[in-house]
Amino acid sequence: MKMYKKSNTLKHTRCLHYLLRQFYHQYRVSQLYQPLSVVPKEALVKKDAAISLSQKLMMECGILRPRGNGMFAFLPLGLRALEKLSAVIDEEMKRVGAQKILLPSLTSGLLWKKTGRWESTGEELMKVKDRHERDYVLSATHEEAIVDMLADTSLLSHRQLSLRLYQISSKFRDEANPRFGLLRCKEFLMKDLYTFDKDETSATDTYNQICTAYDTIFQRIGIPFVKVSGDCGNIGGNFSHEYHFPAPIGQDTLLLCENCGTGSNAELVEDLDNKSCNICGSKLQLQKGIEVGHTFLLGIKYSEPLQCYYQNEKGKPTVVQMGCYGIGISRVLAAAIEVLSTEKNIRWPWLLAPFKVCIVGPKKGSKEEKAATWVNFLARSLNNFPSLRDDIIVDDRDNLTIGKRVMEAKKTGFPIIVVLGKYACEPIPQFEVIETAREEVHYFTQYQLLDYLKNR
Amino acid sequence: MKMYKKSNTLKHTRCLHYLLRQFYHQYRVSQLYQPLSVVPKEALVKKDAAISLSQKLMMECGILRPRGNGMFAFLPLGLRALEKLSAVIDEEMKRVGAQKILLPSLTSGLLWKKTGRWESTGEELMKVKDRHERDYVLSATHEEAIVDMLADTSLLSHRQLSLRLYQISSKFRDEANPRFGLLRCKEFLMKDLYTFDKDETSATDTYNQICTAYDTIFQRIGIPFVKVSGDCGNIGGNFSHEYHFPAPIGQDTLLLCENCGTGSNAELVEDLDNKSCNICGSKLQLQKGIEVGHTFLLGIKYSEPLQCYYQNEKGKPTVVQMGCYGIGISRVLAAAIEVLSTEKNIRWPWLLAPFKVCIVGPKKGSKEEKAATWVNFLARSLNNFPSLRDDIIVDDRDNLTIGKRVMEAKKTGFPIIVVLGKYACEPIPQFEVIETAREEVHYFTQYQLLDYLKNR
Repeated sequence: MKMYKKSNTLKHTRCLHYLLRQFYHQYRVSQLYQPLSVVPKEALVKKDAAISLSQKLMMECGILRPRGNGMFAFLPLGLRALEKLSAVIDEEMKRVGAQKILLPSLTSGLLWKKTGRWESTGEELMKVKDRHERDYVLSATHEEAIVDMLADTSLLSHRQLSLRLYQISSKFRDEANPRFGLLRCKEFLMKDLYTFDKDETSATDTYNQICTAYDTIFQRIGIPFVKVSGDCGNIGGNFSHEYHFPAPIGQDTLLLCENCGTGSNAELVEDLDNKSCNICGSKLQLQKGIEVGHTFLLGIKYSEPLQCYYQNEKGKPTVVQMGCYGIGISRVLAAAIEVLSTEKNIRWPWLLAPFKVCIVGPKKGSKEEKAATWVNFLARSLNNFPSLRDDIIVDDRDNLTIGKRVMEAKKTGFPIIVVLGKYACEPIPQFEVIETAREEVHYFTQYQLLDYLKNR
Repeated sequence: MKMYKKSNTLKHTRCLHYLLRQFYHQYRVSQLYQPLSVVPKEALVKKDAAISLSQKLMMECGILRPRGNGMFAFLPLGLRALEKLSAVIDEEMKRVGAQKILLPSLTSGLLWKKTGRWESTGEELMKVKDRHERDYVLSATHEEAIVDMLADTSLLSHRQLSLRLYQISSKFRDEANPRFGLLRCKEFLMKDLYTFDKDETSATDTYNQICTAYDTIFQRIGIPFVKVSGDCGNIGGNFSHEYHFPAPIGQDTLLLCENCGTGSNAELVEDLDNKSCNICGSKLQLQKGIEVGHTFLLGIKYSEPLQCYYQNEKGKPTVVQMGCYGIGISRVLAAAIEVLSTEKNIRWPWLLAPFKVCIVGPKKGSKEEKAATWVNFLARSLNNFPSLRDDIIVDDRDNLTIGKRVMEAKKTGFPIIVVLGKYACEPIPQFEVIETAREEVHYFTQYQLLDYLKNR
């Protein structure tokens, strides 16, 4: 038993920890848990129609591991990308005044019976019984849970509205036929936001603000996206919009008007042969899309049956007007890789790349060996740039050739690969910089290199 | 439909976002979702033996909301504290080279049958069936899941060891009798780390390194703690240690030697009457503790039945030696509040306080009204101190008296409350600074105040 009591040294410890928090950690490929599956060049790979490009690449590159039908483990590189995406979403949610909370994954079945979704959701709903035979839902979404929580808490004041609460957590859906990896699986990460307003006008205003935040999030990710009128489906409500990454593998068919900039999910359109735009009459184009976000103006669909009220200016309890909004975090990751990657190599959006720079030094015992002296210096220097901090990894496996390691780094899709080879041994050392997305190669001196990467 | 294509402006957008990321967000109590339950002064409050002090305070202060038996929602203040604790754990895990991953909550029941825990865990294990009648465990711990994943992946090389993988996620336990809020509930947040080594010596070395990291984590939290020999229980293994916060409400009884600094969980001791220290022979003291962490040296308990091997220096597959290590994140939060708080007011460890400073301005229409000009200036200035960044909240409800708001801020336990009242209206303005934990009050000029808080 060791007993540590609070003491005067604690204050110093705290200062020290603050300083140490900025400590430099050198990530090394030799220590990274990234099990690569090498597919022999000559192998006849059987095409599996249920496996998407993103899934295949993420599994081959040790980013994702399948864990039973429709379930996946995120390995270190995958989790880093997920955390980056979550951080971007946190920032944009904060900007629109949304507050982060965490609801239990388990929601009482009674609540889902009250709204009718216990039956209407069908077999996709995962149900659990506890030891007392009480019913729970392993939640795919939390409208019931959050509305009941607010209804069960001291009455909201009109001064607190508009109220915006969101969470980032694992969600569950008992897919009949899981496929395409993270694009359609049984357990996934989702950001779900719920908004509460005093009347329809404020609720619509909130809806528009959140859509603008979603636009910003997807613009920051940098993948071309479309926003179309959506099907309210099992969530319900007055109307909805869907965000899609256009891609042939997408499960949704979209009808897009390139003239006036509107569109809708084809599910909403009764007569697909009569494909002209409601607004401008132009011909509509069919396109496949991967749904990555969905926004719903809900009205009182949940707040009325679950009795969620606020106290209005006159002191009278009034039903709240709601919206709900989702971003499929794990799905965005896969969809981005699906859109950007080549058949052989992953390409990440800059914002989500698990590491932005990979430094490859010379092989031990090779003619270029002395270029190794640059590795740690460069890693530390680049780590000092705010935009690259904590985003540098060194491939220190100096028993392997440069060529093999560069090939692996390209496959994993690190956006920038810095190679310290024979040119680094010249009187004025030159460093090779590979921009994987643009397929460009540059040769830079030390100062050119630092200058080039400083503002990335 | 709006189509956003990648363009040259994206690079600029990225730069802009990097700058904006540092943007200043003023948190305001009027907008904070913190439903306070006010208990009338004269009310006869029935004492419920199943409700702990931390639970009562966290519910009254709008930090936690009960959601069914043994389940809780974290409201914004609670989630902020949880995320701070997670960040500290992430830092210390990185320091010992542990890599963060995320495994599914659902683990195949087949794996738990292989290790015998499907039966041995008993009714605490939450079980789920999917639509195809396949069995899953809603995991309380992930030894089976992670060992099977490694066994099912390309053989580890001896060069990759010691391998250390951890996650932070929701865990489930079907408690017969949930009580004391987050101290014993059905769904909770846990950090679980699994280590893989080539032999017993390395595994023991890893074990000691992780224990040192745990010591650091608990020292940084700053609550007095004890580390004792633990009961391996259903996890199994060679030996284990438990980390406890000593507290009367603790569910465990500890035997502590104040002489030589050793101790054990009383469950390990057969004859409690013969209470003398094995090592130095001194008399042992009985003490109650709340278990907040547990470390296990597992040996091959899981790696052998699930066939988790590595390739040794001679190329021969060899069973890996394991350890597993948990920190109950949500429990640490409650336990810290349990230990520090008074009957009426929450007290947070400095590191975990959801906001470190609360600024209370004057009431509108009061004599001190002109002190209001200081509020935003002070909030922004304090936000510029790295140790206080993003940790300032302003109680802007200027329809309420200073007294009422200071009382609420004390109850919520913000470590530092800055009051802008009548002294702030003097020719040389003075600000009142309340240190809630030390129950100290200071009066400072502007520069004294900034100087005082700069190094906190």
